[in-house]
Amino acid sequence: MLFKFLRTSGRLISRQLHTANGTGKKSSMIRIIGTTVCIGGTTVAFAYHWLQRNEAHMAAAGSVSKIATISRYMAEPITSRKVLDANKNDMKCRMEDLVMRIQYDFCRSLEAEENFGKKFLVDRWERKEGGGGITCVLQDGDVFEKAGVNISVVHGNLPKGAIQQMRSRGKQLAEGDLPFFAVGVSAVIHPRNPMVPTIHFNYRYFEVTDSTGQKQWWFGGGTDLTPYYLNENDAKHFHRTLKEACDPHDPTYYPRFKEWCDKYFFIPHRNECRGVGGIFFDDLDGPDAERAFDFVSSCAHSVVPSYLPLVRQHKNAAYGDRHRQWQLLRRGRYVEFNLIYDRGTKFGLYTPGARYESILMSLPLNAKWEYMNIPEQGTEEAAIIDVLKTPKNWLNL
Amino acid sequence: MLFKFLRTSGRLISRQLHTANGTGKKSSMIRIIGTTVCIGGTTVAFAYHWLQRNEAHMAAAGSVSKIATISRYMAEPITSRKVLDANKNDMKCRMEDLVMRIQYDFCRSLEAEENFGKKFLVDRWERKEGGGGITCVLQDGDVFEKAGVNISVVHGNLPKGAIQQMRSRGKQLAEGDLPFFAVGVSAVIHPRNPMVPTIHFNYRYFEVTDSTGQKQWWFGGGTDLTPYYLNENDAKHFHRTLKEACDPHDPTYYPRFKEWCDKYFFIPHRNECRGVGGIFFDDLDGPDAERAFDFVSSCAHSVVPSYLPLVRQHKNAAYGDRHRQWQLLRRGRYVEFNLIYDRGTKFGLYTPGARYESILMSLPLNAKWEYMNIPEQGTEEAAIIDVLKTPKNWLNL
Repeated sequence: MLFKFLRTSGRLISRQLHTANGTGKKSSMIRIIGTTVCIGGTTVAFAYHWLQRNEAHMAAAGSVSKIATISRYMAEPITSRKVLDANKNDMKCRMEDLVMRIQYDFCRSLEAEENFGKKFLVDRWERKEGGGGITCVLQDGDVFEKAGVNISVVHGNLPKGAIQQMRSRGKQLAEGDLPFFAVGVSAVIHPRNPMVPTIHFNYRYFEVTDSTGQKQWWFGGGTDLTPYYLNENDAKHFHRTLKEACDPHDPTYYPRFKEWCDKYFFIPHRNECRGVGGIFFDDLDGPDAERAFDFVSSCAHSVVPSYLPLVRQHKNAAYGDRHRQWQLLRRGRYVEFNLIYDRGTKFGLYTPGARYESILMSLPLNAKWEYMNIPEQGTEEAAIIDVLKTPKNWLNL
Repeated sequence: MLFKFLRTSGRLISRQLHTANGTGKKSSMIRIIGTTVCIGGTTVAFAYHWLQRNEAHMAAAGSVSKIATISRYMAEPITSRKVLDANKNDMKCRMEDLVMRIQYDFCRSLEAEENFGKKFLVDRWERKEGGGGITCVLQDGDVFEKAGVNISVVHGNLPKGAIQQMRSRGKQLAEGDLPFFAVGVSAVIHPRNPMVPTIHFNYRYFEVTDSTGQKQWWFGGGTDLTPYYLNENDAKHFHRTLKEACDPHDPTYYPRFKEWCDKYFFIPHRNECRGVGGIFFDDLDGPDAERAFDFVSSCAHSVVPSYLPLVRQHKNAAYGDRHRQWQLLRRGRYVEFNLIYDRGTKFGLYTPGARYESILMSLPLNAKWEYMNIPEQGTEEAAIIDVLKTPKNWLNL
C-alpha cells in the first residue's frame, strides 16, 4: 500500500522495553524527549505508557480508576499533544489518535495472550523529511513468533513514484510540488502455533494539496487472514466480524471489499491467494469525511474481535514437526507476496532512506523454501491450497 | 538477468533420483524419452548419466577409460542430439553443449563433497512456447543445505517486457515480432556450514532476429560469492581465480566486471552488497563471437576451481548456534535481493506461466528476519557487514 511508501527515513528517538514483571527497562538507545511524561513504577503495566496531558494529571501509580482515563498510547504521539488537543476536529488529528489507540489496544490484547509475559518493544522514530512513527515488535514470544504493529504520521512533498502510482489509480493530481499528509497503522502477526493463522491489517488516511490550495483526501485499508491449516469456522468468524463492521455503513462494502481483497492478495506466479482474504479498499472519499472515518474506525476496531478468539482457541493446540514445516513453507509464500507484489513494501524499499526495519517487520521470523513441495491430494496441506486457488464465499452471500 | 525471464512455462518430462548407493530410481513422474540412452548399473555413478551418441558406444559399465569419453550431461539435452551433432559450428549448439557440460561438472563436483552420498534430483522439463530446461536440485545434504543448478534452452518470440528491458539497456531492436533463442546455465549453492560461502553463477547466450533477418547476439553472465563470515583468503582466492579466467581474453575484463558485479549485487534499502562480489557482465558482443564464447567458456570453467577449495577447507569447520543464526539472517538478505532487485527473478515471475520452481530454486532452504538485528562493533558479524558496505579491491589492483 502506498501508505508504506511514505514511512521513510527515520532516526530512533526512544526505545522502551517492557519486561515480564512490568519493569520498563530503557535500552541504551533511548533519548529523553523533553516534552514527554513517563511515569515509572512496578505496580501496574499501564504506568509505563505515555500519558496524554489533557486527560492524565500524573495519575497515581496503581490507581486503576485513574488509569482508566488515560488515553492509551504505546508512546508519545508523533504530532505534539498540544497540536492534537488544539485540533480535535481536524481529520488528521482524529486519525492519528485513532491509529494510536488501535495500536495500543491491539498490542496489549496480544501481550495478554503470551503465557510468560513477553511484551512489545517500542521504538519511536522521527523522519527527517517530516513526521515519524512508532514501531512495536514482539519477537520470540511463546504464542507469537513475531508480531509487528507500526503507526506512522508523515508529511512533506509527495515523492515522484507515489504521484505516478496515484495517477495510475485515476487520481487527478496537479503538476509541481504536492504537499501531503499520511497517517496509518499496519500490523502483521505471525503466531508460533501453526493452527493459529497470521493476520495483517492496515488503515490509513491521506491528504494531498495542490498549488491552488485544492485538497484531496481519502482512506484506505483492510484486514486479511492467512491460515496454515484450513478451519472453516475460523474463516467464517473472521469474515462475519468484518461484515458486521462494514454493514452499518454500507451494505455493499463487505462484498465489494471482500472481492478486492481476494484480488489484491494474490500471488500470480503460484496462481494462489496469500490467504483466505478479508476486506481491502483504497481511495475511499465518500459519502463524506465524517462517515468514511466512522467506517474506517469500525473496521479498525473489528480487528481484535475478528482475530483474538482464533488465537485463544488454537494457541495451545497440539501440533508436530509436519505442521511446523508446512507453516515455514507457507511463510515463504508470505515473503514472496510481500517482497515481490505488495505495492507498499516495494515502493517503500525503493525510497532512498526508507526506515526499512519498519517496512520489513512484516516478514516472519523464519521461512522456508523447498523445491517442488506439492502436498498430496487428500491431505490437510492440499485442502488449504485448494481454497487459496479458488477463493470461497465464506458467508454464502 | 534477462535470461531467467525466458525460462518460462514448463511441464516436467522426466525426473531422475540418484540415491546414495548409485541406483538410479525414477520417480512416478518419469516418462521415457524415445531417443535417450540410459545405462544402468551399480558399479560407477557415471553409468547413470545420459550418454552422447556420437561419443559413447555403450561404454561397458565400470570401464573408467571408456567412461572418460562420455560427454557428461545430467539429462538428455533439450535440443536433440541429432541437431546438436549436425550443427557443431553453430553458436547456439556450442553454447548448449557448454552449459550442459558445466552443469554436469559442477553437480558432480558438489556431490563428491557430500559425506553420505546425497545426489542431485534431475528434472527435465519442456516449455510449450519452445525449448525447455534441466533443473538439478540437491536439498538437505549434509554439506549442501540447498543447491540448484539449472540450464535452459528456450526460443520463441521475445516477450514485451524483455524487449523493453533490452531497449532500456541500449539495444536497437526493430518493431514487430522478434524471434529469439536463449541458452544458459545458472546456479545458487547454499551450504550448511556457515563458514562455507554461498556461490551464484550464471552464463548465457542470446540471439534475436528482426523481420529483415538481421541477427543480434550477445553473451552475459558472472560468478559471485556470499560469505557469512569474512575469510580474506577465501575472497582473494575466489577473485584471483576469476581474474585468471578473464586476463588471457582481455586484461580490462576483470577490473570492469568486478566493479559491475559490486554495483549489480547491491541491496539499496540496506545500503550493502549481497556478498564479496566476483564478476558480472552483460551485452558482450565482441571482439567476435568466437572470442566471446572462449571467454565465457573460461569463466564457466573457473567456477569449480574458484569455489570447491573453499567448500573442502571449511565444510567440517566447527560452528555453533550463533553462527547458524547469523547465517539464517544473512540468507534473509539473499532472499530480499533475489525477490526485490534481481532483474531475472522479477521478470521471470511476472511472465505468465513461468516455471517458478526453476526460478525460485535459488532461494535458501531456510531464512530468518529479526527486527533490528545490528551486530555489535568488534564482532565477526560486524566485520562482514563492513566489507559489504564498502566493497574491497581484493587483489590490490
